[in-house]
Amino acid sequence: MRILLVGATGTIGTGIAKALEGRHEVIAASRNSGIHVDIEDPESIRNMYREAGTLDAVICAVGGAAFKPFDQLTDEDFAFSVRDKLLGNVNLVRYGFGSLRDGGSITLTSGTLAQQPAPGGAAYSLVNAGLEGFVRAAALEAPRGIRVNAVSPGWLSETLAAFGQDPSGGIPARDVGSFFVAAVEGRDTGRIIVAERAPLIAGD
Amino acid sequence: MRILLVGATGTIGTGIAKALEGRHEVIAASRNSGIHVDIEDPESIRNMYREAGTLDAVICAVGGAAFKPFDQLTDEDFAFSVRDKLLGNVNLVRYGFGSLRDGGSITLTSGTLAQQPAPGGAAYSLVNAGLEGFVRAAALEAPRGIRVNAVSPGWLSETLAAFGQDPSGGIPARDVGSFFVAAVEGRDTGRIIVAERAPLIAGD
Repeated sequence: MRILLVGATGTIGTGIAKALEGRHEVIAASRNSGIHVDIEDPESIRNMYREAGTLDAVICAVGGAAFKPFDQLTDEDFAFSVRDKLLGNVNLVRYGFGSLRDGGSITLTSGTLAQQPAPGGAAYSLVNAGLEGFVRAAALEAPRGIRVNAVSPGWLSETLAAFGQDPSGGIPARDVGSFFVAAVEGRDTGRIIVAERAPLIAGD
Repeated sequence: MRILLVGATGTIGTGIAKALEGRHEVIAASRNSGIHVDIEDPESIRNMYREAGTLDAVICAVGGAAFKPFDQLTDEDFAFSVRDKLLGNVNLVRYGFGSLRDGGSITLTSGTLAQQPAPGGAAYSLVNAGLEGFVRAAALEAPRGIRVNAVSPGWLSETLAAFGQDPSGGIPARDVGSFFVAAVEGRDTGRIIVAERAPLIAGD
């Protein structure tokens, strides 16, 4: 398959690229390398699709949102979160159908905060849950058998390590990548695929 | 209790007002009567709270979004839906904490499309699911024991009737109102309260 991987250089994107290696042709897109794309800019998304040509699948592993205590989140923090991760991914789906072959697929990245809130994560919970609602709906009306799904990873080992915490409590990005491969090669649509390690409990 | 009801004149708002009647003091706000508010405008929300004074509860039953076939939804349809129902309700919560007494509550209105997609409902699914994620997160960080919940009504009898369909397949707005009363008088927080009639099946 010819697969466009948006956000190929991020932590999850790198894990997805490794999981796809040797199985499919990967066309990388990101802000800094491969095909240039800034998902906040609708015209940039359209240009990316023009450059990428006809595709069998699109995977997106980008999108920023604000992370800070609830009472410190500003109007602009919410505006940014909605513009970037939420509407950026929505537009990636809306503009992408025309570039996909019959029966192709789009797989987005949600995240555990959609369903499991944590202090500081209100803007993330909003955009991730919104994306999940959108995925269920877009799948219902996607043309020509095109499938739409999202992978919702738990906390990444790499993220925990970056914060000085025990990485064994998280899931490695490479393992998260396998869930994207399964979404692309499988038959599901409208699904939120939870990619989590079982929680560590005392005595483990 | 002193309860601010935002959207008091809509179908659901009228049902909520009837359910609250004789139990609590209701301060009505809407675009057209009572305290004026346009939830798309942050300053209008702040003015409403200044006028309403100290409250025990806020209930919001307003928020518009675009409803049309997926391939006809425009960038502006999504922008409007996010600005009105999604960020309008988010700001109602963010700006409202300061007006609430300790242990007060805010109850928003989600809707069945958050979890059960239907053709034409992609923008609604996005904003309703996003609101649900936000409610779970805001409840976690709300100060002074303030509770945050959402009621998610199924299709209303009144809406079905307006579309020329059998109203007995839906739930009457007055019954939906009772779920808001329960949210205000109860102890739950971070919950999405589903207010639906059991589906009609052949033979009923």
